[in-house]
Amino acid sequence: MMLEKIDHIGIAVKDIETTGKFYREMLGLEFLGTEEVESQKVKVAFFKIGETNIELVMPTSDDSPVAKFLATKGEGIHHICYATNDIEGDLASLKEKGARLINETPRPGAHGTRVAFIHPKTSMGVLTELAQK
Amino acid sequence: MMLEKIDHIGIAVKDIETTGKFYREMLGLEFLGTEEVESQKVKVAFFKIGETNIELVMPTSDDSPVAKFLATKGEGIHHICYATNDIEGDLASLKEKGARLINETPRPGAHGTRVAFIHPKTSMGVLTELAQK
Repeated sequence: MMLEKIDHIGIAVKDIETTGKFYREMLGLEFLGTEEVESQKVKVAFFKIGETNIELVMPTSDDSPVAKFLATKGEGIHHICYATNDIEGDLASLKEKGARLINETPRPGAHGTRVAFIHPKTSMGVLTELAQK
Repeated sequence: MMLEKIDHIGIAVKDIETTGKFYREMLGLEFLGTEEVESQKVKVAFFKIGETNIELVMPTSDDSPVAKFLATKGEGIHHICYATNDIEGDLASLKEKGARLINETPRPGAHGTRVAFIHPKTSMGVLTELAQK
């Protein structure tokens, strides 16, 4: 594993506009735009801070994984995503070490990335994502 | 507000050793050491990733704020901390904009920092910390 940085922190929200005001107007983060991610049925707003983005994730459908998270846990931090140069190698290494993977092969993420999630059972309650540009 | 980067992500854990294995052995993050933070009644383990740290926060007393978090929400991501050069100025600016502050003046954090928390009501469920070296 040669993780480079935290790519983004994903925050589950009901409304991108309302929460976006906190990050833009109160914290003064740079707003980079929004994008719909079909594979996760979400709309995402990006805010830059140093080498990392804050991503506000709003479900676009009731059967989105994020809609289920909001229904059970409410709004809050949803996952941490690490940037990698070798997502296939990392997933193979994690599997060998006994990690439980939600995605054994990468799937399409935002900004043309390829992403995969590690199950929170492996990481003690923290949903963990890997992303490669 | 001129926030520089994400200083750390705080993760509430029951046992630093067990969760530490995930970050060190599975994700391969660099372990920087541990520290007790008296003001929060916690023991913290630090792992470096890029310009940010992952901080595993374990309560050392039942009346620690983190013990209450674990009792109600279980293990998971606890807060996001942003590095600032002017924590007093930022707190004044946030107050002026109507933010609800847990700490109106900075208090001692880990590594000799001065820190203050913004109430999750203001940031839609996300406990937010500012830290100045």
